[in-house]
Amino acid sequence: MPPVSAQYSVTVRVELDARHEPLGKLTAAVAGAGGQLVGVDLIPGAGAEGKRVREFTIDAIDQEHWEQILRSLGSIRGARVMEYTDRTMQMHRGGKVSVENKYPLKTRDDLSMAYTPGVARVCASINQDRSLAFEYTIKKNTVAVVSDGTAVLGLGDIGPEAAMPVMEGKCMLFKEFAGVDAFPICLSTTDPDEIVRTVELMAPGFGGINLEDISAPRCFEIEDRLKDLIDIPVFHDDQHGTAVVTMAALFNALKIIGKPIEDLRVLMVGLGAAGVAVTKMMLAAGLTHVVGCDRSGALSTTRPDYESGEMTGIKRWYSEISNPDHLLGTPEEVIEGMDLFVGLSGPGVIKAESLDRMNRDAIVFAMANPNPEVMPEEADPYVRIMATGRSDYPNQINNVLCFPGIFRGALDAGAPQISEEMKMAAARGIAAVVSDEDLSEDYIIPSVFDRDVAPRVAEAVVREAKRAGDARFTVETGAFGGSGA
Amino acid sequence: MPPVSAQYSVTVRVELDARHEPLGKLTAAVAGAGGQLVGVDLIPGAGAEGKRVREFTIDAIDQEHWEQILRSLGSIRGARVMEYTDRTMQMHRGGKVSVENKYPLKTRDDLSMAYTPGVARVCASINQDRSLAFEYTIKKNTVAVVSDGTAVLGLGDIGPEAAMPVMEGKCMLFKEFAGVDAFPICLSTTDPDEIVRTVELMAPGFGGINLEDISAPRCFEIEDRLKDLIDIPVFHDDQHGTAVVTMAALFNALKIIGKPIEDLRVLMVGLGAAGVAVTKMMLAAGLTHVVGCDRSGALSTTRPDYESGEMTGIKRWYSEISNPDHLLGTPEEVIEGMDLFVGLSGPGVIKAESLDRMNRDAIVFAMANPNPEVMPEEADPYVRIMATGRSDYPNQINNVLCFPGIFRGALDAGAPQISEEMKMAAARGIAAVVSDEDLSEDYIIPSVFDRDVAPRVAEAVVREAKRAGDARFTVETGAFGGSGA
Repeated sequence: MPPVSAQYSVTVRVELDARHEPLGKLTAAVAGAGGQLVGVDLIPGAGAEGKRVREFTIDAIDQEHWEQILRSLGSIRGARVMEYTDRTMQMHRGGKVSVENKYPLKTRDDLSMAYTPGVARVCASINQDRSLAFEYTIKKNTVAVVSDGTAVLGLGDIGPEAAMPVMEGKCMLFKEFAGVDAFPICLSTTDPDEIVRTVELMAPGFGGINLEDISAPRCFEIEDRLKDLIDIPVFHDDQHGTAVVTMAALFNALKIIGKPIEDLRVLMVGLGAAGVAVTKMMLAAGLTHVVGCDRSGALSTTRPDYESGEMTGIKRWYSEISNPDHLLGTPEEVIEGMDLFVGLSGPGVIKAESLDRMNRDAIVFAMANPNPEVMPEEADPYVRIMATGRSDYPNQINNVLCFPGIFRGALDAGAPQISEEMKMAAARGIAAVVSDEDLSEDYIIPSVFDRDVAPRVAEAVVREAKRAGDARFTVETGAFGGSGA
Repeated sequence: MPPVSAQYSVTVRVELDARHEPLGKLTAAVAGAGGQLVGVDLIPGAGAEGKRVREFTIDAIDQEHWEQILRSLGSIRGARVMEYTDRTMQMHRGGKVSVENKYPLKTRDDLSMAYTPGVARVCASINQDRSLAFEYTIKKNTVAVVSDGTAVLGLGDIGPEAAMPVMEGKCMLFKEFAGVDAFPICLSTTDPDEIVRTVELMAPGFGGINLEDISAPRCFEIEDRLKDLIDIPVFHDDQHGTAVVTMAALFNALKIIGKPIEDLRVLMVGLGAAGVAVTKMMLAAGLTHVVGCDRSGALSTTRPDYESGEMTGIKRWYSEISNPDHLLGTPEEVIEGMDLFVGLSGPGVIKAESLDRMNRDAIVFAMANPNPEVMPEEADPYVRIMATGRSDYPNQINNVLCFPGIFRGALDAGAPQISEEMKMAAARGIAAVVSDEDLSEDYIIPSVFDRDVAPRVAEAVVREAKRAGDARFTVETGAFGGSGA
């Protein structure tokens, strides 16, 4: 049975008899129904004469479970359930981000400097030199989080309105971890040409574009075309965020087991946007032996659908750059002798026991969400290092370790792009947060709440941008704005 | 000579001898050069041994003037000008708005409710019922301020980057006066098809679209087409904001002079976006006799370029619905017997003395910025009521009296559009802020800093939306989020 969790947290207002509150019975009812009582508050002044209103905050397993808890509470004599609030839904009410003014407009002088007529001088300066937009507008610190809502979480194509809560959440993470002003833009089209053109047209006000939850293979084309068209970083987080954090985990895992990356044999299961991006980054890091499996098994230039020409696009390319031994078959059939298993697919693609056929010191990154390809407790006897996408097991591979810091660095440097080298620098930056003393099988990747990560990643990205001559700015330090205009 | 103003405010850091500060000489130098000394501050710990650093804040007339002031300061013995900062430019540095989180993300529980996995439930709800986007995303309170940068202030077509400071300023006004979250979107295209399609595609995350500084005649087409395409309010402020505030001023002016609106004879000079919109709204209010002048004089179906078919589009339409007496000629030539002169053109289109040929109790709204068609002091002998766009004369007709409140009302009601009736209600709402006791020739329109205006306008708009059956929501009042999801 899954555990109770805050995502199914409910607050329940219950009216009780003021003199003989059946409080003990209520808490017992919550516990008896399997709920986790997080708190009980008195609501002052609420309730009828001789009554008192208390608010119970309870974590449950799911909606059905909390309805069960509510029924238990309602059946207690002297208690009346008045209303309940789904705390998760409540947190999203009205949306999760706001646009705020950096200073108030209270006087005519404020208006004449921030708006007309003074603003005309600022506009005229930018009109003379477009690059001043980075200095006198929000561009320098602002990222658009763009989605068409076609591949949202595990929900699939749910459309732009329904994608907004995720994009707003993403914007919150940008702010919370890296001080980046991010704004959600959800588009009511799935046509790559239209998405590309829309982002290109709105780019002048932004310093970066984070593409999010756009389904493959459109996401590849959209990102590639946008990179050619606009002079600010374009980053499809589902691909590159996952790849960067996976590489960080791999770098640290290899420090533990001591195998050189060049010799590693990798089985990659799941060849969506993330799987392809992880593979590309591994190859860039010097790895040569990767076997990728889609639903039909290992990709190879000897697979019938390759030979027949039926296999097209990115998978055709993948077949050509991977699988030098031309292995064919299911993950189960090709896992023999692998050093690393990377799962970006779904639960059940491999049996835990099959991991026993991997090489000594096996590494497994089972990243399907919420249910990994193989559960850590089942894999435990067969693997040395295990990571998942989940927060309730060690070694959580989570994109939030990458995107806030990588954009922070790119914006600070004024980089026109996030290059392959910058991504690799970010991966090494994340890995370096785990000190040699702390590094262990259960700690190859820092916590998502480790506040050192984003600054370290940003620093690494800025350094790489400077090295490559990709830094538009020297990174600002002082507070006073300098002299003149 | 124009007055000193905050828009040309400068802070100057001067290093002085600590024991014999020539402070008196410095203040005298500022005054002698015609600058206005706003403040002097000591910068603690700055300056070399035996020196002291003071920061002078000085308002000047323009950039040339402040360079003159700086030279005066620099010539004083014992004083060294270290650096100076243009305060207006400084206020725009890094942009003027930010995106902020409504609550922090500090714990795993925060993350699991605001982001994954909890957010999936919110997304799924909206996927089931798209209208819930108004409840669980930022849509309900968020407006896009969209421009292509083609008609910015008096600067003209300066492009999207250079337009950003104005759009950010607009967003600040939305927040400051009406609590609306507004975000600037500047587009790198001037093609109406592309602007329409881009706004349509990004509409899912917004509750309203404020079009801004898009040149005529494209602005008419863009607005009209967008209104048909999307189910949230679309409002071109340069047209309708100006029209609404002008109508508010007119309603109050007519209360003073006592003429019925139906009998009013109006000369309208300047037929850009604002001039056309003001005319339309006047006709909707019952006015029948309007003569509109462009650069070639009064529009009429008897004007040669109308008869030849050379005149097209909106001007052809204007000729047909106006000028029932078929007057022809310049503003000077057709002003005889007019009750109201409305200027939305530029300085010099009419001589002050010509206003003498208007009817008794003449009203003049000379709204060209920054220099009105006729200056109030020159018009004074000939007119009873005078209004301009300027803050340094009585009766400032300024759009900020309209757009924050009208969007506040439309968003609160969930109105799918801002109808003609809603605009008229807004105009009456603004007018009503001026009480009958306070109403006078010099006070027909409230101050832009009158905090009653936006709520009164919003209230009037909500009332009209309800009346017309255009209100998607009953306007929210309570604080606690209600029961269930």
